[in-house]
Amino acid sequence: MKALVFHGPGQTAWQDVPDPGIKDAADAVVRVDAVTICGTDLHIIKGDVPEVTPGRVLGHEAVGTVVETGGDVRSVRPGDRVLISCITSCGRCRFCREGHYGQCRGGGGWVLGHTIDGTQAEYVNVPFADLSVHPLPSAVDSYDAVLLADIFPTSYEVGVLNGKVQPGDTVVVVGAGPIGLAAIATAQLYSPGRIIAVDRAESRLAAARALGADATASADEEPDQLVEDLTDGLGADVVMEAVGVPEAFEMCTRMVRPGGHVANIGVHGKPATLHLEDLWMKDVTLTTGLVDTYSTPMLLKMMAAGRLPAASLVTHRFELGQMEEAYEVFSRAAETGALKVVLGGPQHNAVTVQTPGK
Amino acid sequence: MKALVFHGPGQTAWQDVPDPGIKDAADAVVRVDAVTICGTDLHIIKGDVPEVTPGRVLGHEAVGTVVETGGDVRSVRPGDRVLISCITSCGRCRFCREGHYGQCRGGGGWVLGHTIDGTQAEYVNVPFADLSVHPLPSAVDSYDAVLLADIFPTSYEVGVLNGKVQPGDTVVVVGAGPIGLAAIATAQLYSPGRIIAVDRAESRLAAARALGADATASADEEPDQLVEDLTDGLGADVVMEAVGVPEAFEMCTRMVRPGGHVANIGVHGKPATLHLEDLWMKDVTLTTGLVDTYSTPMLLKMMAAGRLPAASLVTHRFELGQMEEAYEVFSRAAETGALKVVLGGPQHNAVTVQTPGK
Amino acid sequence: MKALVFHGPGQTAWQDVPDPGIKDAADAVVRVDAVTICGTDLHIIKGDVPEVTPGRVLGHEAVGTVVETGGDVRSVRPGDRVLISCITSCGRCRFCREGHYGQCRGGGGWVLGHTIDGTQAEYVNVPFADLSVHPLPSAVDSYDAVLLADIFPTSYEVGVLNGKVQPGDTVVVVGAGPIGLAAIATAQLYSPGRIIAVDRAESRLAAARALGADATASADEEPDQLVEDLTDGLGADVVMEAVGVPEAFEMCTRMVRPGGHVANIGVHGKPATLHLEDLWMKDVTLTTGLVDTYSTPMLLKMMAAGRLPAASLVTHRFELGQMEEAYEVFSRAAETGALKVVLGGPQHNAVTVQTPGK
Amino acid sequence: MKALVFHGPGQTAWQDVPDPGIKDAADAVVRVDAVTICGTDLHIIKGDVPEVTPGRVLGHEAVGTVVETGGDVRSVRPGDRVLISCITSCGRCRFCREGHYGQCRGGGGWVLGHTIDGTQAEYVNVPFADLSVHPLPSAVDSYDAVLLADIFPTSYEVGVLNGKVQPGDTVVVVGAGPIGLAAIATAQLYSPGRIIAVDRAESRLAAARALGADATASADEEPDQLVEDLTDGLGADVVMEAVGVPEAFEMCTRMVRPGGHVANIGVHGKPATLHLEDLWMKDVTLTTGLVDTYSTPMLLKMMAAGRLPAASLVTHRFELGQMEEAYEVFSRAAETGALKVVLGGPQHNAVTVQTPGK
Repeated sequence: MKALVFHGPGQTAWQDVPDPGIKDAADAVVRVDAVTICGTDLHIIKGDVPEVTPGRVLGHEAVGTVVETGGDVRSVRPGDRVLISCITSCGRCRFCREGHYGQCRGGGGWVLGHTIDGTQAEYVNVPFADLSVHPLPSAVDSYDAVLLADIFPTSYEVGVLNGKVQPGDTVVVVGAGPIGLAAIATAQLYSPGRIIAVDRAESRLAAARALGADATASADEEPDQLVEDLTDGLGADVVMEAVGVPEAFEMCTRMVRPGGHVANIGVHGKPATLHLEDLWMKDVTLTTGLVDTYSTPMLLKMMAAGRLPAASLVTHRFELGQMEEAYEVFSRAAETGALKVVLGGPQHNAVTVQTPGK
Repeated sequence: MKALVFHGPGQTAWQDVPDPGIKDAADAVVRVDAVTICGTDLHIIKGDVPEVTPGRVLGHEAVGTVVETGGDVRSVRPGDRVLISCITSCGRCRFCREGHYGQCRGGGGWVLGHTIDGTQAEYVNVPFADLSVHPLPSAVDSYDAVLLADIFPTSYEVGVLNGKVQPGDTVVVVGAGPIGLAAIATAQLYSPGRIIAVDRAESRLAAARALGADATASADEEPDQLVEDLTDGLGADVVMEAVGVPEAFEMCTRMVRPGGHVANIGVHGKPATLHLEDLWMKDVTLTTGLVDTYSTPMLLKMMAAGRLPAASLVTHRFELGQMEEAYEVFSRAAETGALKVVLGGPQHNAVTVQTPGK
Repeated sequence: MKALVFHGPGQTAWQDVPDPGIKDAADAVVRVDAVTICGTDLHIIKGDVPEVTPGRVLGHEAVGTVVETGGDVRSVRPGDRVLISCITSCGRCRFCREGHYGQCRGGGGWVLGHTIDGTQAEYVNVPFADLSVHPLPSAVDSYDAVLLADIFPTSYEVGVLNGKVQPGDTVVVVGAGPIGLAAIATAQLYSPGRIIAVDRAESRLAAARALGADATASADEEPDQLVEDLTDGLGADVVMEAVGVPEAFEMCTRMVRPGGHVANIGVHGKPATLHLEDLWMKDVTLTTGLVDTYSTPMLLKMMAAGRLPAASLVTHRFELGQMEEAYEVFSRAAETGALKVVLGGPQHNAVTVQTPGK
Repeated sequence: MKALVFHGPGQTAWQDVPDPGIKDAADAVVRVDAVTICGTDLHIIKGDVPEVTPGRVLGHEAVGTVVETGGDVRSVRPGDRVLISCITSCGRCRFCREGHYGQCRGGGGWVLGHTIDGTQAEYVNVPFADLSVHPLPSAVDSYDAVLLADIFPTSYEVGVLNGKVQPGDTVVVVGAGPIGLAAIATAQLYSPGRIIAVDRAESRLAAARALGADATASADEEPDQLVEDLTDGLGADVVMEAVGVPEAFEMCTRMVRPGGHVANIGVHGKPATLHLEDLWMKDVTLTTGLVDTYSTPMLLKMMAAGRLPAASLVTHRFELGQMEEAYEVFSRAAETGALKVVLGGPQHNAVTVQTPGK
């Protein structure tokens, strides 16, 4: 089959690789019908994620059709259309039993496209399939559902739920890329009084307004001041960091009100300065987190009911074979205006199945 | 009357000052029967707290007897023995209505010995008396109860409750001074599986063990390693910072397990480095806070039932008139072994009352 | 002034009574600009609430303008337009400090139109005014705001919050009178997946659909079966009782899923049968409650932002002097289709103020 | 092998039955080293639990040694000493993913000694072994650990945690049989201020005091009055029902304070009367529940640390072959004073293993 293979920093190729097969009784092999590219994939290609070794097939988000299952798989069968979660769960370790699948100690967690071959391929082998894929209701389009593999549960769990958004709250989202936009979309499930989006790019602020932000501010024009003005000097109830740089995180800690929450969603490569001399008496809660995807069944239900604006985040669509072109567009987001790019096989909403390699 | 007056950095005197009187219908004047000195008072004297201006009477912790009340005070009357909380509550602002008295916007919060005259005096005027003093059950000794004015609710609310200590948890307390020791004492209300205390001073670690710590580690001998060994490499469920320096805070963030809590109790004067490059995916919750004293009624009930080991924290007792000597002993804690020093008037457990100045 | 006076079961009159005046330093006298009638008022008139004695002025919901305040009132002044909460709070007792104002032990709770004279009058004296009235933003209409005096916070706190409605939930509201409709409106703040309304009257079910119910069922046509069908036999996540009769409560306990919540909002006069032989192993949480009105500031904020459909619940408007006619229409709701009836003085949105009796 | 077989109401026999064997790849066969009898077993024998059909081996609590595992079992191996939980978990259904194993929809829940053969036998086959047995630390005695199969997690989860016991609370436990006593023991993990036990039998009240109850009351001598007196007329913060009859449940609802919790632990066969005419405005939370056993790992940790007084609940010990005699003693508890009876094989603390039937 074809797959996107990492060959070391700066080097990838869409090339022939052996078909995946069942290696463990809990595995399922899935034909990839829709797949997307994550900002994390760009970090991997830069060489920032050393656990990813040359030869690895990238990708941790997909929708597909089950083609083969190991003897121990009970929840899905060949022919089922499924969402492949970015997080795999062994279901047995202490963290999985507590719903913290992202911290799995039993062989799961974020493994796809990281420590095992991933979803940017024609077929992918998913370990612990019973707990790591979700059957899709027919009302849900594959190209929409693929956004539930990572960014929607990430923004919802790590941003909205960790940040404890409540009705009436003033919520600030710093960073209006795909993750920040999904945070703006899912925060509305809790009816905040006001959502303020902060970014450098006007095009992203426009997308934020389209998705429900009530106010927007350029990151370069004293967004702290806007938050202060809108909250009578008090600060925001909830501030989410969706950028991943120290300056953005530090801005968040200045914007939060006494008693408020700062929820970090961004992936950071460097330390930030925490101004404890100001914060120690401010009753602030700061949270970090990798997604667990425990919210995926609920988000799927909301999507099936037409209540999650996933499609608005997709700016570009490609055929699966255009993987390299899709990467090219996604990596130049500032120029191309790319938010999420989605790639699909010809049968992406069909259910006819062929075992790989046959 | 006599009171300890701040005269600018490095300068204080136990001297005559005018008797306080009722200035507002919500005030109560209280004769001070027992009072203590807080580490924060030492910071004030050093000049670290610029809102405290020369002429201010210091002190924010006391037990006393009400001698006079304003026309609007309904909950206490002259003759009542009361605990004076370090936090004053207006009862009307949004924060007070939510129980966040420490963040009071209506004239309360931490004001005693800070922005108004405090408790290190023969008499003190307490604003918003209905919500800022607590009548004492007769079973509770004044010299014990004075520890409920600040350090017990601070350690319990900002450490134990913010840190969400649960039965079976591994809890680390970094810093075994009075606040850290009170955290060790009150953490036991939630039956952690194991408490580990960290400090530089062996005498304080001995006090920690006496108060219930199961293990202790010198701050200079790789306490991270001990925590790692005792938790099979996972880290602690809850880590409390009770020192107030960046190094201690940073140590806490290294000791916490994925999914765990770091509760900062220490008063910080400098920023710390937050290693988001390690923490972003670790599901950590960090909290800061000034005490609200919402837990004081419960702590009083536990003290009355003999279930809070307050007396163990008191190393020195003085007469009220020995204020300067008490400061001297408290400020040289490393040499004197002082934890809490308590000063009392001759009638400290009596209820006969004399209006000040008469 | 004129007021609606209770003269024993079945007997009321809109008649002259003495003007109210400040009796306590915490009181405020308010001119009534908008007032409504509650189902509870009908119970009082029937004689079901024996604490209400002849001579009492009825009514516990109003919007008005402050005309006089006692010396201890700090938060409002003459001329302020305010919402009078159905719950009065002393602010000092243990329950008030915990935000449970409805359980106030210090002279508050539900007292207006119950144990002291109420709001169905030209003027009313409100005790503990600082904590019992809410200044109104100018963006909020008095005729809308009067619905925040009781039914919106009741439905939201006792129904939606006690029932722990979460995004994606299936919510059933049994009873689509004003309280049930307000529950349907406020449940949407938490984005349930589906709201099902149950009532006998088709007109109320139509109102439920207009307010956002996704499905409706006649109480006489096996609503249990509909809930079972819509939930694949599992039952609803949250069921709210908004009727106040045993049959409705018992229906709720049959409709709830394992692990779900039954939130009773209805006022009951008789015991119900609790089928513990079915429920003991079903992990069900049942809650009861009198409103506390702690959520009123948030609801006011949402109303000011145009996000609470209060006006849809008002079916009839009257002048204040038409009190008896308004009662007549409200008491024959089945015929008149009345939901909420609102009465207003001529200046109901003005702020000019005249002291009563002058 | 030998096992206790149910032959219809009133009829059981300790008799030869075929050895169990692996039927599914997720199964484990365990040699029973320690087993106990539950009050529920007596109900089954009376014929109260119709799903239990003649021929069924009874028992749902045991400690044993794994002798054989299916191909899909990853967490335990032959030779491991394990606790067999009374609740089996498929690990895949929605309820298991949420930790509500007791409500498992995938073939688990309470099945042992109920819908499949149970633990009162020399060997037992445990389905979904990875999630349904817990490896035992060597520090834990088998005869103690068997109390963690059911009564300790039941009392803790359904009583203490559902009841939300907090430090300082007044807690009433109605019924001081094994479940009530385990509730008294585990409530102390949250440091209530006072525990009051209610029962008819003085011997059980004495056991309650020995386990930490601060006060006891005969169920026949107005225990409501005692609770009222001890709480200044307010009522208890938490009341647990550990009997399973309507009168006891109704007493609980009279004893609870406004804002308090009634946690039902008892197994009920008849409906109770719920006095909504008193309770509707009392802010009461009532919970029911079947144990999930999510707390078992924590309780095991506390037992290993010597902090759960399990042994105090065991009044009688027997050899496994004395099953009928043990039942006889347990069923006449009023005369024999039996709390828990524990039966063990000769190797109950050993780890040598023999495959059954070989």
